[in-house]
Amino acid sequence: MQPSTARPAPDQLPASESLVEQFSAVRRASLELCAPLEVEDHGVQPMPDASPPKWHLAHTSWFFETFILRERAPGYRVFDPNFEYLFNSYYNGVGAQFPRHRRGQMSRPSLAQVHGYRAHVDEAMVALLTAQGDDAQLREHTVLGLNHEQQHQELLLTDLKYAFGHNPLFPVYRSSPVAPPGTALSAAFVPQADGLATIGAQGSGFAFDNEHPAHQVLLQPYELANRLVTNGEYLAFVQDGGYGDPALWLASGWTRQQDAQWQAPLYWHQRDGDWFEYRLDGLAPLDLARPVLHVSAYEADAFARWRGARLPTEFEWEAATNRAVAAASASSVAGNFVDDGFLHSRPAAASAAEGELLQLFGDAWEWTMSSYGPYPGFQTLPGTLGEYNGKFMSEQLVLRGGSCLTPRGHVRSSYRNFFYPPDRWQATGIRLARDLPRSGSAA
Amino acid sequence: MQPSTARPAPDQLPASESLVEQFSAVRRASLELCAPLEVEDHGVQPMPDASPPKWHLAHTSWFFETFILRERAPGYRVFDPNFEYLFNSYYNGVGAQFPRHRRGQMSRPSLAQVHGYRAHVDEAMVALLTAQGDDAQLREHTVLGLNHEQQHQELLLTDLKYAFGHNPLFPVYRSSPVAPPGTALSAAFVPQADGLATIGAQGSGFAFDNEHPAHQVLLQPYELANRLVTNGEYLAFVQDGGYGDPALWLASGWTRQQDAQWQAPLYWHQRDGDWFEYRLDGLAPLDLARPVLHVSAYEADAFARWRGARLPTEFEWEAATNRAVAAASASSVAGNFVDDGFLHSRPAAASAAEGELLQLFGDAWEWTMSSYGPYPGFQTLPGTLGEYNGKFMSEQLVLRGGSCLTPRGHVRSSYRNFFYPPDRWQATGIRLARDLPRSGSAA
Amino acid sequence: MQPSTARPAPDQLPASESLVEQFSAVRRASLELCAPLEVEDHGVQPMPDASPPKWHLAHTSWFFETFILRERAPGYRVFDPNFEYLFNSYYNGVGAQFPRHRRGQMSRPSLAQVHGYRAHVDEAMVALLTAQGDDAQLREHTVLGLNHEQQHQELLLTDLKYAFGHNPLFPVYRSSPVAPPGTALSAAFVPQADGLATIGAQGSGFAFDNEHPAHQVLLQPYELANRLVTNGEYLAFVQDGGYGDPALWLASGWTRQQDAQWQAPLYWHQRDGDWFEYRLDGLAPLDLARPVLHVSAYEADAFARWRGARLPTEFEWEAATNRAVAAASASSVAGNFVDDGFLHSRPAAASAAEGELLQLFGDAWEWTMSSYGPYPGFQTLPGTLGEYNGKFMSEQLVLRGGSCLTPRGHVRSSYRNFFYPPDRWQATGIRLARDLPRSGSAA
Amino acid sequence: MQPSTARPAPDQLPASESLVEQFSAVRRASLELCAPLEVEDHGVQPMPDASPPKWHLAHTSWFFETFILRERAPGYRVFDPNFEYLFNSYYNGVGAQFPRHRRGQMSRPSLAQVHGYRAHVDEAMVALLTAQGDDAQLREHTVLGLNHEQQHQELLLTDLKYAFGHNPLFPVYRSSPVAPPGTALSAAFVPQADGLATIGAQGSGFAFDNEHPAHQVLLQPYELANRLVTNGEYLAFVQDGGYGDPALWLASGWTRQQDAQWQAPLYWHQRDGDWFEYRLDGLAPLDLARPVLHVSAYEADAFARWRGARLPTEFEWEAATNRAVAAASASSVAGNFVDDGFLHSRPAAASAAEGELLQLFGDAWEWTMSSYGPYPGFQTLPGTLGEYNGKFMSEQLVLRGGSCLTPRGHVRSSYRNFFYPPDRWQATGIRLARDLPRSGSAA
Repeated sequence: MQPSTARPAPDQLPASESLVEQFSAVRRASLELCAPLEVEDHGVQPMPDASPPKWHLAHTSWFFETFILRERAPGYRVFDPNFEYLFNSYYNGVGAQFPRHRRGQMSRPSLAQVHGYRAHVDEAMVALLTAQGDDAQLREHTVLGLNHEQQHQELLLTDLKYAFGHNPLFPVYRSSPVAPPGTALSAAFVPQADGLATIGAQGSGFAFDNEHPAHQVLLQPYELANRLVTNGEYLAFVQDGGYGDPALWLASGWTRQQDAQWQAPLYWHQRDGDWFEYRLDGLAPLDLARPVLHVSAYEADAFARWRGARLPTEFEWEAATNRAVAAASASSVAGNFVDDGFLHSRPAAASAAEGELLQLFGDAWEWTMSSYGPYPGFQTLPGTLGEYNGKFMSEQLVLRGGSCLTPRGHVRSSYRNFFYPPDRWQATGIRLARDLPRSGSAA
Repeated sequence: MQPSTARPAPDQLPASESLVEQFSAVRRASLELCAPLEVEDHGVQPMPDASPPKWHLAHTSWFFETFILRERAPGYRVFDPNFEYLFNSYYNGVGAQFPRHRRGQMSRPSLAQVHGYRAHVDEAMVALLTAQGDDAQLREHTVLGLNHEQQHQELLLTDLKYAFGHNPLFPVYRSSPVAPPGTALSAAFVPQADGLATIGAQGSGFAFDNEHPAHQVLLQPYELANRLVTNGEYLAFVQDGGYGDPALWLASGWTRQQDAQWQAPLYWHQRDGDWFEYRLDGLAPLDLARPVLHVSAYEADAFARWRGARLPTEFEWEAATNRAVAAASASSVAGNFVDDGFLHSRPAAASAAEGELLQLFGDAWEWTMSSYGPYPGFQTLPGTLGEYNGKFMSEQLVLRGGSCLTPRGHVRSSYRNFFYPPDRWQATGIRLARDLPRSGSAA
Repeated sequence: MQPSTARPAPDQLPASESLVEQFSAVRRASLELCAPLEVEDHGVQPMPDASPPKWHLAHTSWFFETFILRERAPGYRVFDPNFEYLFNSYYNGVGAQFPRHRRGQMSRPSLAQVHGYRAHVDEAMVALLTAQGDDAQLREHTVLGLNHEQQHQELLLTDLKYAFGHNPLFPVYRSSPVAPPGTALSAAFVPQADGLATIGAQGSGFAFDNEHPAHQVLLQPYELANRLVTNGEYLAFVQDGGYGDPALWLASGWTRQQDAQWQAPLYWHQRDGDWFEYRLDGLAPLDLARPVLHVSAYEADAFARWRGARLPTEFEWEAATNRAVAAASASSVAGNFVDDGFLHSRPAAASAAEGELLQLFGDAWEWTMSSYGPYPGFQTLPGTLGEYNGKFMSEQLVLRGGSCLTPRGHVRSSYRNFFYPPDRWQATGIRLARDLPRSGSAA
Repeated sequence: MQPSTARPAPDQLPASESLVEQFSAVRRASLELCAPLEVEDHGVQPMPDASPPKWHLAHTSWFFETFILRERAPGYRVFDPNFEYLFNSYYNGVGAQFPRHRRGQMSRPSLAQVHGYRAHVDEAMVALLTAQGDDAQLREHTVLGLNHEQQHQELLLTDLKYAFGHNPLFPVYRSSPVAPPGTALSAAFVPQADGLATIGAQGSGFAFDNEHPAHQVLLQPYELANRLVTNGEYLAFVQDGGYGDPALWLASGWTRQQDAQWQAPLYWHQRDGDWFEYRLDGLAPLDLARPVLHVSAYEADAFARWRGARLPTEFEWEAATNRAVAAASASSVAGNFVDDGFLHSRPAAASAAEGELLQLFGDAWEWTMSSYGPYPGFQTLPGTLGEYNGKFMSEQLVLRGGSCLTPRGHVRSSYRNFFYPPDRWQATGIRLARDLPRSGSAA
């Protein structure tokens, strides 16, 4: 997830809170995620894409310092001039960046210093919001910074999971509530409306720039699976030799899984014939009823082909979700988010209403077959913030719906997440789709 | 260009020729392309993606042997059992493949043996076509094989150009007719029709499977450049520091050009301040009026951004081209193809009719911003041939229109070529597009 | 430095201490080296060869646990069974090893747990030594383990220096005593005795197995520089274009420095024309009088060629040093070791006796031109400890004399350190040598 | 084999031939080696270290052109100015070099042009030698150039073998005389004289600079195997699990063979349980009586350790060979060279005199444990030729004795060949050595 710029709207967060309260709540949530960690855990970078928790804590502060405090806070004192370079992620407009793959080698600044950095920024932000809280651009950029921080909250957990999941000691991050036993809903396909559909952010709530502008697309007849693919279903694919049959795979997917010797989703382990899965609450027997997590788009695509199906387009997903949201069916829009504390996917409900789609939000980011690109008429934000989103619109796929590690309230039906097809360390899962026959003429 | 399977139609080639004659003509054309070559030139693989001419000559024969002769020719004697492995490109369904990056290490079979292979296959094919020429599937697969061979004819030239263009001696492949001097048409944008458009192969002519099924898409208001971007225009981008400004580039494009130290299109050389370009007729001063060739999609995209424009979608291109073809405007559908002997792009005409789009066909494959994916309802061919196209629908972009190295008659408005964004060794160029304001309501 | 096995002799350490006291002193010294560190600093691995301090603390304990406590301590309880794998460096005879390049990703066990591990091992070792202190093999293996730990004490500092020296904040490890100003001795060559010389460990003191067996070698006439090469002398090489003249370099050295873009020793930085050096007491102006540190063997060799000299063989060094030691000239055998607290090389004395060689011990490991190989009749220790030394006798060069980061008392004239020619992160320096004419007949 | 410079002596080649005749004979021999090749075979580079035959033919001509004709031939016309760059191997003093790993991509100049180059150089050389044949330096450089060409004759065959041996068609280069059946001599160790020995080139014959100056070394008591290790003996090592036991291997050797998945010498193939070996006369059942070829130094070392032995030093080998040569025992100094036409190792004689060492010359280059370094007092040649040898004295090992692919008359007892420990594509084999107890005192 490359955090993205936005056309923020101050009313996106609950109206009952002031922006200062919202600010404090989001900033506090980042620290709370780190509460179970040792000091040592804050510094680990287990692969180039997975940054240390300490870096996330600092970079999110750098965002407020760079784009708000340096710009408009009168007399603001920069915490440490070196941090401009150290904690710049990828903004060439701001300047050079400390190499990404070396973030884990930065024992200094220490965690205590980074905590000091956060406090320094928080204090200045609260003062600024108090003094200039009516300024529209300040409010917009602040809301953008809070959404940015929420994105990093999820990354902090997925990056940490990669570190813990590759440590032979399989540390427990935090125990989770016991998931109620039960059988997930039987898998079925639900036909969806085709024809013209409006896609993209509408209304006045906050949305990133890549959700704009809203526009119409033409959908061909299709149907969607009523829930996410489960571990049990995916295990059947594994046991059927799915990883050994090139006919099921995209050519680049086949090359990648052969080179990397993938035999199952990331974090699955087979020991003496039994399957286990590393989760943030520890190494546990594979729970067949839960939605599969941590598959690449290649694996999702191969699984779908094995099932005689395909992945949905991002437009098919959004149109169906918009209808579910409009119908206000509770189970459709409810979701298992990080705030629920399970820190992993949960089985779908055992039953659903006729035509209902479960697990649209939360649980697992759903790979789509849509490449991540600009909507017609897409405009980046002016200035350096414009570097934020557009420059990543190449060779990535869109994912939809949020995951069990996403903060509640962060996603919406128009929300577009994006990762490269081989990426597996996010909480990524699968929803199947199928073409339906066209009703009438050739086109 | 990953050669693709098809739903071939026997009537795709001129009706005045019998299929046997068509077969012989296409097969002969491959050898004619090699006429200017030394024996040594047939074996060179200058990079993993660029196969030796000898390999192309053999692989195209392998295609007929594997998918037609072995399947249906009574008593057919395989030329050499080793060739099944040696000249299999990527068909896992057929079996293992000799490693692609080692094709240039294969001094044996010799060129004479490969010529013998071709003659052996040709003789058997002609006999088969003579005996069973009424068989629909035989005709379909034969036409497919001929289109496949035409694709490799273009690849043979681009691969050879890579070898010659990286040889310090800059060998001349073949001198070309002198291009008439003249000033190309002034660049302008031409508004196009928006709304619903039918995309994909229609009618009974041959088309690859990836052009099917025809279907409708919804186009937003847009305009297209009236001709291809010229060397002169691209040189202005170079001289304006385009390669040094990260704000113009996709993130992955910036990384790539920095790592590879690109400063100009492939085959451009600066000597004592003057610019030269290696062409198949030798190293020559850069001709500013000709369309730029051998740019990656990253460069095309950066150039477009520098110009305040963007690349078209493949649908925008096809809809506009369909209209031009329907209007039968001669200059729109005419094209500079390999048969014309220039072996390089040519300047656009100096004038054009109102609203006319020049150089839609030939000259340069036009990068689009559309990722290469399946059309709604896409089906691969049954059997091993089904491996052909679908498995490459990942991380590539679609290119349209054919190039100066494409055989005349090979392309059409629904034709989809596809390469990876960093690829530069094909004859790839740029046509700009821009959004137009939407007429009415938000979506 | 690959720590090595030994034929230890209990009397190697001061007789006034009991072995228990020696054990406690060496173990305590490791922790004292870490006293200035933050918790975060203990976990950083800035390159595959440079292990985190925490790993050194654990691995040295693992050595006692694996080769002594598990073998002979009655009822010894292993601290954590996972540690056998986690902290095994390279002993295939013990079992598989956690991948070396991932040591920095091991946030767990925490530093506190590693401290607990050390205390657990210390307690068991002290009990064992108290109970079985007369056992010769126990004493031998204990002394070996202490020498092993001293080797890791030096590595801990060089690895930490690599981390700090590549951190843009250039952290100070510990301030050091002010080095007295002064001019180092003028450089001169001192002729040495040629003919037969006895090389290798003699007497009853501790020595590693690679110092055995003592044997004679035949030396040709040669002379040695009276002191180490200084920063000032090396800077002259840099300023004379030494890094740009391929005629000065070994072919593999030239390739390496071109690829790695070396322009000066590791830790040298040029800013606005002035040269600085990162030292463990911080970034400081380059002190021209101090011996140069952190050069690869390639650089040492190129510098020597530039000066019309060469590197000495390890035998030339040892024979000369043996004579100096025998002459008991105080300045010859004195050395600047880690215990002196300077943590960096110091200028040589301003004057020396006729024929005296300064800085033979301490200050800088001196590259020799001798490849690291077995002495005639070399035997590895029996059992798994035999894996220790012999298997590294390939493609490395011998270094002699110890450095400013070596514990005092750890080295001797027969001591052989060894690293790969491109290695620069150890405290490595240069002493020049030259051939002298042979007196008489051709050979 | 990095071809080396020399202190050539004109009388090194048979006195019965004039230098012009010698020149013509050696130059002709290169072409004769290529007689069995197709044009295509001349251009193949199967790995970066293995150059195409065409390159060898051109580079050896470049050597005469660059170091002799351009220097001293009045009015010499350079054949093609581009060749100075194209066929420079590694002489930075001459100028930049075409990248080594791209030599196989150079289809131009064609083979015919390279043949023209050779004829042009030959004509000029003969004229020069006729006109200035009394000039000592001309004679010296010419003899050097001929020895250089002989080195490349062997490389041409080993490089070609690598290409053919990795071609699935396993082409036959040339059939060889049938090797007489028979049992090789029983393996035994023969004690050798210890003490002082003179090493290096003596007398007036040609020798490379790296064989100078002659000097004395001190040998400890040792014994040498009476013949080379056979395929049968090596197969026993393979079948005993030698490649799976890390205790037998140098650490870098173990890493390398694990990474490269070596299971046997290069060119050995196991099919349905039977072992075959690719030889220049084709793929054949493994002949157990022949000396093993194409092992790396790592494998030679591991095999020796498995046998309780070690590799000899280059000094041990040379001293023993000097004695054998002095004793003029025919079987000791005879050898199987390329001129014999077998193109592969041959079984040792079935019997030998008491104390006789067989196969010292020819059959297989014998790995020694000696790193390739300068002899005491070593001097490179003046000028650019000085780049030739000294710069490769790093990280390589010395091999002795010549092989079945070496031209007869090219080697001598002081001849030092050198390759990197992992190299396997030369005709490299194994002779074992062992320490003997020292007679008297400790050293």
